[in-house]
Amino acid sequence: MLRQVTEDHLDDIAIGAAILGTGGGGNPYIGKLLARESIREHGPVEVVPLDEVPDDAFVISVAMMGAPTVMVEKLPAGHELERAFRAVESYLGRRATHILPLEMGGLNSVTPLCLAARVGLPVLDADCMGRAFPELQMVLPTLYGVAASPMGIADEKGNASVMETISNRWTETLARSTVVDMGCTAMIACYSVSGAQAREATVPGTLSLNEELGRLVRETQAVNGDAIGAVAERLGGRRIFSGKIGDVDRKTVAGFARVESRIDGLDGDAGVSMTLYTQNEHLAATSSDGGVLATTPDLIIVLDLETGDPITTEELRYGCRVAVVAAPCDPRWRSPEGLEIVGPAYFGYDFDYVPVEATAART
Amino acid sequence: MLRQVTEDHLDDIAIGAAILGTGGGGNPYIGKLLARESIREHGPVEVVPLDEVPDDAFVISVAMMGAPTVMVEKLPAGHELERAFRAVESYLGRRATHILPLEMGGLNSVTPLCLAARVGLPVLDADCMGRAFPELQMVLPTLYGVAASPMGIADEKGNASVMETISNRWTETLARSTVVDMGCTAMIACYSVSGAQAREATVPGTLSLNEELGRLVRETQAVNGDAIGAVAERLGGRRIFSGKIGDVDRKTVAGFARVESRIDGLDGDAGVSMTLYTQNEHLAATSSDGGVLATTPDLIIVLDLETGDPITTEELRYGCRVAVVAAPCDPRWRSPEGLEIVGPAYFGYDFDYVPVEATAART
Repeated sequence: MLRQVTEDHLDDIAIGAAILGTGGGGNPYIGKLLARESIREHGPVEVVPLDEVPDDAFVISVAMMGAPTVMVEKLPAGHELERAFRAVESYLGRRATHILPLEMGGLNSVTPLCLAARVGLPVLDADCMGRAFPELQMVLPTLYGVAASPMGIADEKGNASVMETISNRWTETLARSTVVDMGCTAMIACYSVSGAQAREATVPGTLSLNEELGRLVRETQAVNGDAIGAVAERLGGRRIFSGKIGDVDRKTVAGFARVESRIDGLDGDAGVSMTLYTQNEHLAATSSDGGVLATTPDLIIVLDLETGDPITTEELRYGCRVAVVAAPCDPRWRSPEGLEIVGPAYFGYDFDYVPVEATAART
Repeated sequence: MLRQVTEDHLDDIAIGAAILGTGGGGNPYIGKLLARESIREHGPVEVVPLDEVPDDAFVISVAMMGAPTVMVEKLPAGHELERAFRAVESYLGRRATHILPLEMGGLNSVTPLCLAARVGLPVLDADCMGRAFPELQMVLPTLYGVAASPMGIADEKGNASVMETISNRWTETLARSTVVDMGCTAMIACYSVSGAQAREATVPGTLSLNEELGRLVRETQAVNGDAIGAVAERLGGRRIFSGKIGDVDRKTVAGFARVESRIDGLDGDAGVSMTLYTQNEHLAATSSDGGVLATTPDLIIVLDLETGDPITTEELRYGCRVAVVAAPCDPRWRSPEGLEIVGPAYFGYDFDYVPVEATAART
């Protein structure tokens, strides 16, 4: 289990983050560079397991919010996450004791590490989703009645705001427009919770899991092993498709990267094609022979067919040869309350949720 | 000069507000009802002339922000302006001593009176424009380097936010999106200034002027006099057109009411038509024989041709017989710096500003 993040961990964390991020959460390479700078300047970051956080700790979640396709061209200046974080502290009149990753995703697994190094606070070995999701209310704390607001938001230009809303869906609505105005990416601080609430309403161990997944891929690659199989096994999932990306239809709509990709089958999937639906994160995969291969909230992970390296949303392009792995989400997402906020119907798909364990195996 | 606003003043203030508001600033009838309720519940509002406000007073400007066409269907709940106002106070850690009207416009002339009655503070006999304008940075304080933010914004549902921005144009951008999300109207508090700054950067006496204009219209109507001529004379302007509204093309775009109206000439203007361009406020009037009759920042005021009663943007409709009066704006708006933020070029019109005193008389 990870107790401290040093510069040496960042390569593995970046790879693992791109796996759990299911395409979203921002570019892991950029995240790694930002975290490396922060750790070089301020020193390593202490990681606290959920079961060691005091009940009365005061924890604030942080993340980048916006379109990952924009993030690769519009880098943070460095000060904005602290600005958003301090805005929440000021609003509540209380200093935070721990920082909590809002999601596990490419950049967003390391965003909290950058802030933690900068402000000298420990980070919790946990996150609010166990993966990445595109909208702000899509976190387990919502299921436990925790409010997203007061939420701080800040951009690289120096604009900032703090909002307090009547529901987490309203926080998403107001914050999304602000993010679009700010240039489609901004830094946010939200979901302030006690240590006791964090233990109840988050997914434990996911920062460690990131690092473990990245190490697994690296070590498997080093012995020319099957990194794709290793990732699928570690996450209790399986490979659902192998193919070559034949078409990527990419739009930035209402602050989201919306992508529909056609993957033409190879090997055992030859003659069949898969459609991958993405809104920042990969949300559904259907087969041209009529089946649903996997759907949100389960994890849909795109890996390089040769190396097993994860491919994020902004990196999907024509000609990539990929393996698609699906893995079970945190079981709380599969409850009726969970599916209401992150199930396929919420995103407008006309099929029901089927756990990945129950969908027909193709490969 | 007005020293106190009681229920008895509200009819005249509402009429005057619709005149100075040049169509915008919200519906004056709704404003009157809101202010009447507040004054009945909390008592009359003290009015302080600009030259009596202490240098070290702490003044916050307030208004309704949004599309006047929406405001007539979506009434405020009553608590939101105080919420926005208190948010700025909390952010700055300081209690306000006076309330300043952001603009003189239908509803927005009385919005500050509602808040003043509710929180028991005096209101300044002044405003930041000397009229109404559609965007937040279009105030004289901007010309004096006063920041719009921290700005509080709140809706009738209970959502609120405080923003701090790098420029007043950025405050407009972020606030406009939030207003659109909130349903195209919201209440705002911004431009906090000292008494000394208020004296320098606002237009004195405009609350009194509202009341005087309303009284003038009422008294002139009572003796069957020429209310249109009386308004034009009091404001140092003149009637530029008389006609019947032949077409109203009305859209709500990006949170604004955008209207283009054709007015077919009557009497001395028979055979000619006028086009009236409106973005919340009436911004330009051109004649079908090629001339510019009046343009922002001068005041373009639409009055009922028979009675002289003002007609606001949301009330423009086919068949109305109207007189259009143009009057000079505060001279500071005619400076190069003023015209840069409220001149015709800013709104995309392809003609230069010509002071209303210099445009050719049609009637």
